[in-house]
Amino acid sequence: MAVDLYHGEPGSNSLKVLQAIHEKGVPFTSHYINLTKFEQHDPEYLRINPAGQVPTLVHDGRVLVESTVINEYIDDAFPGPPLKPADPYDQGLMRIWTKYVDEVFRPSLSFLAWHAVIPGLAGAMPEGAFEERLARIPLKEKRDKWALAASGGFTERELESWRHNLAEVTDRVEQALTGHNWLVADRFTLADIAVFAMAISMPRSHGHLWNAERTPHAMAWLERMKARPGVAAALAMPNHTSFARAEG
Amino acid sequence: MAVDLYHGEPGSNSLKVLQAIHEKGVPFTSHYINLTKFEQHDPEYLRINPAGQVPTLVHDGRVLVESTVINEYIDDAFPGPPLKPADPYDQGLMRIWTKYVDEVFRPSLSFLAWHAVIPGLAGAMPEGAFEERLARIPLKEKRDKWALAASGGFTERELESWRHNLAEVTDRVEQALTGHNWLVADRFTLADIAVFAMAISMPRSHGHLWNAERTPHAMAWLERMKARPGVAAALAMPNHTSFARAEG
Repeated sequence: MAVDLYHGEPGSNSLKVLQAIHEKGVPFTSHYINLTKFEQHDPEYLRINPAGQVPTLVHDGRVLVESTVINEYIDDAFPGPPLKPADPYDQGLMRIWTKYVDEVFRPSLSFLAWHAVIPGLAGAMPEGAFEERLARIPLKEKRDKWALAASGGFTERELESWRHNLAEVTDRVEQALTGHNWLVADRFTLADIAVFAMAISMPRSHGHLWNAERTPHAMAWLERMKARPGVAAALAMPNHTSFARAEG
Repeated sequence: MAVDLYHGEPGSNSLKVLQAIHEKGVPFTSHYINLTKFEQHDPEYLRINPAGQVPTLVHDGRVLVESTVINEYIDDAFPGPPLKPADPYDQGLMRIWTKYVDEVFRPSLSFLAWHAVIPGLAGAMPEGAFEERLARIPLKEKRDKWALAASGGFTERELESWRHNLAEVTDRVEQALTGHNWLVADRFTLADIAVFAMAISMPRSHGHLWNAERTPHAMAWLERMKARPGVAAALAMPNHTSFARAEG
């Protein structure tokens, strides 16, 4: 049984899958894809995942993409503690969370981060270098978004909508955790994993929303998550972004 | 066992769930929500689904929303022919399709339809009537999108991106069905159900993409889908939109 996981830093969608695979106790080979070097667009990686995105799971030669889909697969295909509630209805409530992360939480967070970071990143690169990297992005939609972010071209309407979404996510998480230790069915599930992968950055990146006064239950849950051995192991995976930040 | 389904016309997300429940043979009570009369925003319905969207499933008093989540639940919670492949990996491939419909196919199709239809709809209503209906939409994001669509305010970049997505979906479906009767694992699954719910309108609304010359396999699959008794039963549900169109 060979399990290969291609992933970036323990953040966002890579962290989602790293948490699941560690919590489940699945032995795997880690392949670190350095996103700051755009290795996700290297021809070698594109042969595995033509969309040029992380993470990718390869299990006995079968390739699976999309972190939410991979996490359900990890839970279904391997022994170890179940990461879904037993009841189909509770599974439904869990999937509403994982879907909400994919459709609302992650994109809002990502686009706002791009808006804040990419113009400076592109400006700091030698002339033509950013364009050269852009041209290597296989998905037109992603290529367009990066070009737009670099030019500071997101509209005020888009930015306002994403900020609104982050406030809504925050309230929803805080409310779900009031009187509960976990998001669904009083147990740790893929819902906690998915929300945590994005929420871990919120106190730093959007501290006016996530803080001890405004969201005490969400803040306590972040600590509860970090204390889980599987989650802690995922967070301990190589993080060159933080390393670079610490150096810089 | 009481199963109540609140749904609109047999199209889009309502058709998704109607197909699953009929294919599965689950006895249910149909509650038709007239979207052209904005009944999804009636206080009575908002008590069941505060987001004011269709469909909603209520099973023995437990409320479930989000058509993709509902369809997995229908398959898991009731007897009848399984609507998922048996193998977890094939289930993953199936979920990549249902996710792609939610994140790419349906929004692209919906926004282009809104862009084409809503300005005329809003313009044809008595002064203030459209604004009055807008004010009843509970989700700010939806409210903003409707207002924007009515004012013809989608950007050329957005329209171009949605058109690009529809072409990409079309190619992906045609390719998946070349040499195969169904989208995943050579059997009818929730992937076919999800794609069909949107694709059924493509030959009429985007005939330059979906037609006998360009997408022969996708066109044959549409007919194969319509011939299934469960799908046919779903399509035979009340459709006041078509009725209104036939009258008009």
